[in-house]
Amino acid sequence: MSGSLRVVGLGPADAEWRTVEAEGALAEAQHVVGYHSYLARLPALPNATLHGSDNGDELARARHALELTESGARVVVVSGGDAGVFGMAAAVFEAVEQGPPSWRALDIAVLPGVTAMLAAAARLGAPLGNDFCAINLSDNLKPWSTIEKRLALAAQADFVIALYNPASRARSEQLQSAFELLRRHRTPSAIVVFARALGRAQEQLTITTLAEADPARADMQTLILIGNHTTRSIPRPAAAPWIYTPRRLDGAP
Amino acid sequence: MSGSLRVVGLGPADAEWRTVEAEGALAEAQHVVGYHSYLARLPALPNATLHGSDNGDELARARHALELTESGARVVVVSGGDAGVFGMAAAVFEAVEQGPPSWRALDIAVLPGVTAMLAAAARLGAPLGNDFCAINLSDNLKPWSTIEKRLALAAQADFVIALYNPASRARSEQLQSAFELLRRHRTPSAIVVFARALGRAQEQLTITTLAEADPARADMQTLILIGNHTTRSIPRPAAAPWIYTPRRLDGAP
Repeated sequence: MSGSLRVVGLGPADAEWRTVEAEGALAEAQHVVGYHSYLARLPALPNATLHGSDNGDELARARHALELTESGARVVVVSGGDAGVFGMAAAVFEAVEQGPPSWRALDIAVLPGVTAMLAAAARLGAPLGNDFCAINLSDNLKPWSTIEKRLALAAQADFVIALYNPASRARSEQLQSAFELLRRHRTPSAIVVFARALGRAQEQLTITTLAEADPARADMQTLILIGNHTTRSIPRPAAAPWIYTPRRLDGAP
Repeated sequence: MSGSLRVVGLGPADAEWRTVEAEGALAEAQHVVGYHSYLARLPALPNATLHGSDNGDELARARHALELTESGARVVVVSGGDAGVFGMAAAVFEAVEQGPPSWRALDIAVLPGVTAMLAAAARLGAPLGNDFCAINLSDNLKPWSTIEKRLALAAQADFVIALYNPASRARSEQLQSAFELLRRHRTPSAIVVFARALGRAQEQLTITTLAEADPARADMQTLILIGNHTTRSIPRPAAAPWIYTPRRLDGAP
């Protein structure tokens, strides 16, 4: 029997934001490997054995999934959002590269998903309507100085900026530093959005400005979007404003 | 009767990469408005009237959809990939802002999708495993000087770079200029991928280097990914190599 490994992006919440392909892979899985919180969001999968692990164990989790695959099983590794954006896909290929040569011949595929910044943008209107970047604010795996350099250059490039993993219980001061740095490059009225628990019952969208952005609003379930110099809001009756970034920039032909 | 407008990202190809939510909105639509090529990719929708238009008509298309919505219909505007990433969502909100005040009270929602860079990344392995940016290389709506500035800053930030709309019949020299600019900032061995017609029968992935990247490989159906200084390949027996960007950077704690 020949095994297969599917690295599946579950989207930010439930099945509505999952792809048809991801739903199919879950339905056929014999083993599902992932962070406890993601497994808890899955529908009932009576034919699958679930292997939950703690956050931070990405490489061990990837190795476990590869071992199950090599033994001949249909294995799914789940990741929140899109597995390729600060999710499990990179960990799987790190494990493949470091592992036995036989792992390079395994049937592996990554199934893309809706990453958090796309879901947040959709809820708000169209804030990613012009060039943008995504920065993982966690310094677990890269030096803080690199993050600061990237933030400064992104601000100078006038990218709309999506900040993933802006804070956790162990990290709260870095987001404050990030906002201070961005204030040196962007106008105080630049639009900032905290998007929390997207697509779930506790979903919360907070629209504010760079001057007033409060780092305490962010936790591990929050994505932050920072508009560029043209990002604007459209007031609506009895609803939060639409936020969008025009496609056209001054000086266009 | 109260109308609704859903701005739907169709994903890069067929239903496999569409969300469950997007499939549901299509099934319920009375009118579907979009670029001819995207309408041609839809499944049969016997209850919907299709309104195809040429590329470049985004604002007129958005106004048409808003008028149909105001008349009380269930309307879907379709966009390739994710509607919020260089797609129809920004055009819809531009039209809302410029249109009659009544349009601000309409029932509008954007439904996120899988944007091309996520699908390309999934096919390759995990090239977006570290911080990245997305730049629309078309200068129809922004000055070329802005694009050059953003490319240079993105290269200095060592972002993985996704280039959308890298070329068209009317634009071929700009991608050459973009590669020349990037060669000033990145090593010649940096990995470059041309991902064409993703998810379709004609899908073609070309893995090369910045030194050897040939702009003639790109057309309107191509997305280009340029790795950062750590993006690497894992050779595989009888298959294209995996491409991934490690999560960890030198100097990490």
